[in-house]
Amino acid sequence: MCGIIGIENNNRAGALAVLGLMTLQHRGEESAGITISGKGALLTHKGMGLVSAVFARDVISSMPGTAAIGHVRYTTSSGSSLENAQPFYAKYEHGEIAVAHNGNITNFPKLRREFASKGALFAHSSDTEILLHLIAAAGGKPEHAVPAAVSRLEGAFSLVFLKGKTLIGARDADGFRPLILGKAGKSYILASESAAVEIIGGKCIREIKPCEIIIIENGKIKKSFLYKKPKKQNSCIFEQIYFSRPDSALFGKTVKESREELGRRLAKQMKHIKADIVMPVPDSGFFAAQGFSRESGIRFENGFVRNHYMGRSFIKPSQELRELAARLKLSVIKEVVKGKDIVVIDDSLVRGTTSRRIIRSLREAGANKIHLALSCPPVISPCYYGIDTPVKEQLISAQKTKEEIKKYLNADSVTFLSLDNLIKSCLGNAGGSPFCTACFTGKYPVKNKK
Amino acid sequence: MCGIIGIENNNRAGALAVLGLMTLQHRGEESAGITISGKGALLTHKGMGLVSAVFARDVISSMPGTAAIGHVRYTTSSGSSLENAQPFYAKYEHGEIAVAHNGNITNFPKLRREFASKGALFAHSSDTEILLHLIAAAGGKPEHAVPAAVSRLEGAFSLVFLKGKTLIGARDADGFRPLILGKAGKSYILASESAAVEIIGGKCIREIKPCEIIIIENGKIKKSFLYKKPKKQNSCIFEQIYFSRPDSALFGKTVKESREELGRRLAKQMKHIKADIVMPVPDSGFFAAQGFSRESGIRFENGFVRNHYMGRSFIKPSQELRELAARLKLSVIKEVVKGKDIVVIDDSLVRGTTSRRIIRSLREAGANKIHLALSCPPVISPCYYGIDTPVKEQLISAQKTKEEIKKYLNADSVTFLSLDNLIKSCLGNAGGSPFCTACFTGKYPVKNKK
Amino acid sequence: MCGIIGIENNNRAGALAVLGLMTLQHRGEESAGITISGKGALLTHKGMGLVSAVFARDVISSMPGTAAIGHVRYTTSSGSSLENAQPFYAKYEHGEIAVAHNGNITNFPKLRREFASKGALFAHSSDTEILLHLIAAAGGKPEHAVPAAVSRLEGAFSLVFLKGKTLIGARDADGFRPLILGKAGKSYILASESAAVEIIGGKCIREIKPCEIIIIENGKIKKSFLYKKPKKQNSCIFEQIYFSRPDSALFGKTVKESREELGRRLAKQMKHIKADIVMPVPDSGFFAAQGFSRESGIRFENGFVRNHYMGRSFIKPSQELRELAARLKLSVIKEVVKGKDIVVIDDSLVRGTTSRRIIRSLREAGANKIHLALSCPPVISPCYYGIDTPVKEQLISAQKTKEEIKKYLNADSVTFLSLDNLIKSCLGNAGGSPFCTACFTGKYPVKNKK
Amino acid sequence: MCGIIGIENNNRAGALAVLGLMTLQHRGEESAGITISGKGALLTHKGMGLVSAVFARDVISSMPGTAAIGHVRYTTSSGSSLENAQPFYAKYEHGEIAVAHNGNITNFPKLRREFASKGALFAHSSDTEILLHLIAAAGGKPEHAVPAAVSRLEGAFSLVFLKGKTLIGARDADGFRPLILGKAGKSYILASESAAVEIIGGKCIREIKPCEIIIIENGKIKKSFLYKKPKKQNSCIFEQIYFSRPDSALFGKTVKESREELGRRLAKQMKHIKADIVMPVPDSGFFAAQGFSRESGIRFENGFVRNHYMGRSFIKPSQELRELAARLKLSVIKEVVKGKDIVVIDDSLVRGTTSRRIIRSLREAGANKIHLALSCPPVISPCYYGIDTPVKEQLISAQKTKEEIKKYLNADSVTFLSLDNLIKSCLGNAGGSPFCTACFTGKYPVKNKK
Repeated sequence: MCGIIGIENNNRAGALAVLGLMTLQHRGEESAGITISGKGALLTHKGMGLVSAVFARDVISSMPGTAAIGHVRYTTSSGSSLENAQPFYAKYEHGEIAVAHNGNITNFPKLRREFASKGALFAHSSDTEILLHLIAAAGGKPEHAVPAAVSRLEGAFSLVFLKGKTLIGARDADGFRPLILGKAGKSYILASESAAVEIIGGKCIREIKPCEIIIIENGKIKKSFLYKKPKKQNSCIFEQIYFSRPDSALFGKTVKESREELGRRLAKQMKHIKADIVMPVPDSGFFAAQGFSRESGIRFENGFVRNHYMGRSFIKPSQELRELAARLKLSVIKEVVKGKDIVVIDDSLVRGTTSRRIIRSLREAGANKIHLALSCPPVISPCYYGIDTPVKEQLISAQKTKEEIKKYLNADSVTFLSLDNLIKSCLGNAGGSPFCTACFTGKYPVKNKK
Repeated sequence: MCGIIGIENNNRAGALAVLGLMTLQHRGEESAGITISGKGALLTHKGMGLVSAVFARDVISSMPGTAAIGHVRYTTSSGSSLENAQPFYAKYEHGEIAVAHNGNITNFPKLRREFASKGALFAHSSDTEILLHLIAAAGGKPEHAVPAAVSRLEGAFSLVFLKGKTLIGARDADGFRPLILGKAGKSYILASESAAVEIIGGKCIREIKPCEIIIIENGKIKKSFLYKKPKKQNSCIFEQIYFSRPDSALFGKTVKESREELGRRLAKQMKHIKADIVMPVPDSGFFAAQGFSRESGIRFENGFVRNHYMGRSFIKPSQELRELAARLKLSVIKEVVKGKDIVVIDDSLVRGTTSRRIIRSLREAGANKIHLALSCPPVISPCYYGIDTPVKEQLISAQKTKEEIKKYLNADSVTFLSLDNLIKSCLGNAGGSPFCTACFTGKYPVKNKK
Repeated sequence: MCGIIGIENNNRAGALAVLGLMTLQHRGEESAGITISGKGALLTHKGMGLVSAVFARDVISSMPGTAAIGHVRYTTSSGSSLENAQPFYAKYEHGEIAVAHNGNITNFPKLRREFASKGALFAHSSDTEILLHLIAAAGGKPEHAVPAAVSRLEGAFSLVFLKGKTLIGARDADGFRPLILGKAGKSYILASESAAVEIIGGKCIREIKPCEIIIIENGKIKKSFLYKKPKKQNSCIFEQIYFSRPDSALFGKTVKESREELGRRLAKQMKHIKADIVMPVPDSGFFAAQGFSRESGIRFENGFVRNHYMGRSFIKPSQELRELAARLKLSVIKEVVKGKDIVVIDDSLVRGTTSRRIIRSLREAGANKIHLALSCPPVISPCYYGIDTPVKEQLISAQKTKEEIKKYLNADSVTFLSLDNLIKSCLGNAGGSPFCTACFTGKYPVKNKK
Repeated sequence: MCGIIGIENNNRAGALAVLGLMTLQHRGEESAGITISGKGALLTHKGMGLVSAVFARDVISSMPGTAAIGHVRYTTSSGSSLENAQPFYAKYEHGEIAVAHNGNITNFPKLRREFASKGALFAHSSDTEILLHLIAAAGGKPEHAVPAAVSRLEGAFSLVFLKGKTLIGARDADGFRPLILGKAGKSYILASESAAVEIIGGKCIREIKPCEIIIIENGKIKKSFLYKKPKKQNSCIFEQIYFSRPDSALFGKTVKESREELGRRLAKQMKHIKADIVMPVPDSGFFAAQGFSRESGIRFENGFVRNHYMGRSFIKPSQELRELAARLKLSVIKEVVKGKDIVVIDDSLVRGTTSRRIIRSLREAGANKIHLALSCPPVISPCYYGIDTPVKEQLISAQKTKEEIKKYLNADSVTFLSLDNLIKSCLGNAGGSPFCTACFTGKYPVKNKK
């Protein structure tokens, strides 16, 4: 997961891009970067850590320009280093170009071999770099080069390019990762979430379509076209379950509304469960728990306090301190849970380790029965389209039966939202199912290639 | 406002103190520090910023010791600099001593003049330094020196001292600022909030009493006594309204429960108000809004998204960007508020500027009627006991009539919880009113001296 | 000017490379970097500033490996930024490769256009990057790729490559920049100066020849050959005049000896000059002044004190302070110069601004006659082979007559060593003239192309 | 050893003080600091490391003021930490005061006990802090307080104080450490060395006398008096031997001249020694070697290359690398020493470890006979007046006979300059012996107290 943004035709493009990245910060805390189109040259500043740290005092004011793209990167198992921070940049025959990418290019190894065999150099271990090679190989103006490059890609990608003052957006054929078009005054904006458009003062216009390329210049959409014939859409449904901000909208519904509906439908599935209170695991479970409470009539309680201040820097020198640090991240209000039968709502069950710790904390605090409810089906297959899910061997639902899971977690019951209920909750004005559900079903819309 | 902690008789005293400070981080984000009793010497590490930044990699592991005190400092108008970061430390005739202080010593100017006239040196601008002079002037063992020093102080103070491996706690005569005694295994803990005791694995025993000094050594309470005859208790009621974590307990009640009751009683005061939804200003208004909803039956909605990632470092080069940054801190979910009559619950109204901006955001998002409800009475007098409230001239309730306030905020109505309701909400097993309410009444328990 | 080093077959390759770079530090203080061949991958660490700053605590111990190359970079007018710090690195079809370069590739613009037109990407503004493209384009094993790449280059280059644990050296056809082969125990070393070989405990074997490529693996010279038929050698004679350490040897003579001879021959040229003392401009003029003194019998005096502590960071807020800071870099011992007739020996006269300031300081200190003697001829043409000389317009000897120069500098006389004397001084066991003297004659061995 | 400076009545006092500290940098590289008298308050900036690092970009321009004092601190065995960096500062009854100190207060432990028993607090482990207590205890105006404070001190001290815009200097009764009065334009300057006065554009007026206090305000000497009746002067003769810059003057002679004379007299003592060359250990041995050469007629050669770039940060992970790093600091030019009989001139022999390594390097480089000549007598007693000499047990001359020393160092002969010759060399226009020679004789002018 990552977050991307692009803004053009604005004297404060850099500062607005930083604000936009702050809005998208939850999509990636590992690194942040901005490329700005200054006087005749692209300037890039990137660094490890939060946007607020990377863009500390004076950085942005020393980078004047009227168009900018930005990127926040999620910690992935591979390569946590500055060299993988985006935007990526290169000079080539037709000048300078920069790109920021959210997703995962599944035919990257093949493309890389192809280019390497022609003598291309690679400076990064990230798949995004191949895009710059494809652009350079295609040559010519962006109108020509970007579609030529993008049509060679397979997998998941939402992209923003900066070439001079031209802002270009592109999205893969399945529409895995979101990309929103917005406008603020005379400036167009491209962003991973609608909230980023709105918070910097813009209005959302529409999503960029699967297979669409959009070329924006001087406050005008110069061109917008499909580089390939689109097929069924396969948008990642984890945006609604977990990734997106609740105030972002997807398929005509705010994520908040979708999550409430997840909770309502969970409640319907769990009619047989009796409980005193329903509690969300913060922050992602909040709206689902509220929906659950409204549907079931079971009293909503906020029995966890999440600590937002925990950095990654503190070294935990012993198992005991590691445990304490984990507990500090999510502490239980004893008086809320003591002696109570509780429905705990979490977004999903992946490895199971966090849920297990949460249930142990609740038991220590004196909870009576604990019913764990997940607002999605069992995750049984890894994602190849941009989410850093663990391999199958580490997915608890791929390795254990439901009974074993219940035992492992020490829960009184474990309920997963059905796939059908999940999809129905997230459909706004969309017909059919425009969602990728490969992680629940193992049916991948696009093959993963090595 | 500040947070303090002390731990003794524990090989991991330093690491546990850091975890404790992280639990108390909401009480002060400006600076953080720890003093540890190592081999024959006190070692101090402090720095500007969050605990997680100040105690980054390896710092704590290079500070072995079995007793520690710690401090987080709130940004106050005076002196945001490393020299004011605590704990404070000095060598004197009887060795080394360190102290961490939460509160405000009202007779500090007088004491300072007294000591200066005797030739004393001052290195800091903070009132806490006078304590070290008082200790040194008293001389002798801590059993003697601490009461001698502390009995000279007027105003608000909860204190933890470290002298060798001896941990000492002290509290002012009014009990303005909280100080909790807890135990984890064979170690005693002193902390500003019960949550800090519990999260590092301890159990709360009791509050340190007004006028009490407690001396702890090698896992034993060596001595505990009143240094002065206590009078009526005057604990700061803003701990319940705003400062303390919801999972901390005061006067036999969790802060969460007190806040819910604030909301219930607000609802009773506002029976005449009709609304579609009740919304908290996050995070402090949450439980009050929930209590309000339960009492009134008006639907609870979470219509704000708070951004926890905003640092202070980003320079806002223009009024427009400053506005955007403020909006980014607290954004509105349009779909929740559009066309709705809303009760907005905030903890208090001080200057009025934030509430005004919030109401403007709600209006822009299409809210219909907006009823602002505050879970305390009008703040009309500054605090001299440790809270950084503005001067009277900047307190909106001291300057404007309720009608003018409503107009200024552009609210359809503004309701303050009555003082009686406030006190009743926060009384757990306490009889009478053990609270200081000077900020609402102007009746100060202790004079402020210049 | 830059310094390069390579070491292989040594468990402490990284640490030795750092020591080697410290020995070469005088060749470039702008940036420093090391690439180490670790377990199956090349690791690079580089940064701005001195070697001792870039390789501060723990950096090198976290980079295990048995072969390493390193680079120190001189401040050039173009591009003082981390992106131009070397070694450069790329992945390509045949794995990873890193390169460090001393020199200037004169046909870089042409090569760059050629590669850009084929779709190549460029991440740096430095000419060194083209080497990686040439290697990748050549493909195959280094035995094949390096000569194919290097034979396309024109201009000045001494190169060290690291490919796995293979260390490769190469030198241009003119032999502009030095490159020494040495051995320490079972490890071969390549370095810009013999002193770097010796100080890390090795012995010098020979210079790498013009047109030579040497491939070293596991403590053995796997291959060594000429990639092109060599013509007359054109080694930069400024190595002896200024760049190299006095304890380095070139053409069978230590630089110290060559410099003394420069001074002796200067003295012979200046027999008509009467003076009380001869003084070097430290540190480069020292040995020449000593030679001058021995030849002429004029008393040697060290009348300047050079301040090695001046960083670049101190901001000089006014002309007056700038003057003081310049004076602080090189202060005069008044008592030495007062009332004296002085021969001042400096290495060369480029812009003339420093010499002018020095002479002013001497006059202020009460010197009587001041005879400036330069240990090389007038510099009248810029260098295209790796020295950052100013353009012709800023070369005082290209713009002014000798009489005008004397007047501008306010010297009583100005004497340049003759070209013939310069060359004879630096010839050790070399016959003919193996030197490039383009900066004195304007006759360039290799054309500079745009 | 430390360096101090003070400048008043100058709008660029801060910048000039920084330049002055750079001139004095050789006297202490551990920490640097400046206190400036700004608008109504003293501002201090200090840090660990070189002046150029501590006063990097923009620091000084953000500290306007017209008077300043500064300090560079030598690494002493005790307490290498920021808390001991000077100037020291305190607020007391009569306002703010800052002080910078060169020396060692021998009755510090007694004074400290005296003040501690009266309740004084100490924040530092340095003896300088007692001065602030003495000033505060004396009270009143500086004219009164400084002499009252200073007359209580025993031992070695040269001091500069800043109180508002008043600059005050003071020197101990023995005149152990130097303190020079100078003037630049309308500003008075106080500095540890005359070179610092001259380099920032001033002229030296005279030394501050033993027992003298000087009070300077608005470009005028307000007062200058002896706070005590002076006895015989005991200035540290190591200033001439080692500490001071060669361009500084003491007792009417430049240090350069004194050092030459040391060399001449050494030569006279060593008439029986035959040698091919005389070589200085750089940089302190240079002028003595030159004097030696002139007197003896033995050829002067510079056979060592000193590396000024070695920082302290590089971790030497093994004995072998430590050896290499030591060698890198001082490398031998083989061609100079091979087969030669050599006189090596060093300033002094303290522990003997460095000399031993130097002689080993010379032997490895092929030197034939090696005669070590020291420009002072054997050091047999530690210094209590501000030099960080090791304890007696580590002083080679206190532990071994001359024969044993020769053997340990592996020298062919070892010659020490006689005390008489040392004193005579350093006497300029001073009569008698104004020098402390306790380190050579064990006769201490002032008792050291614990």
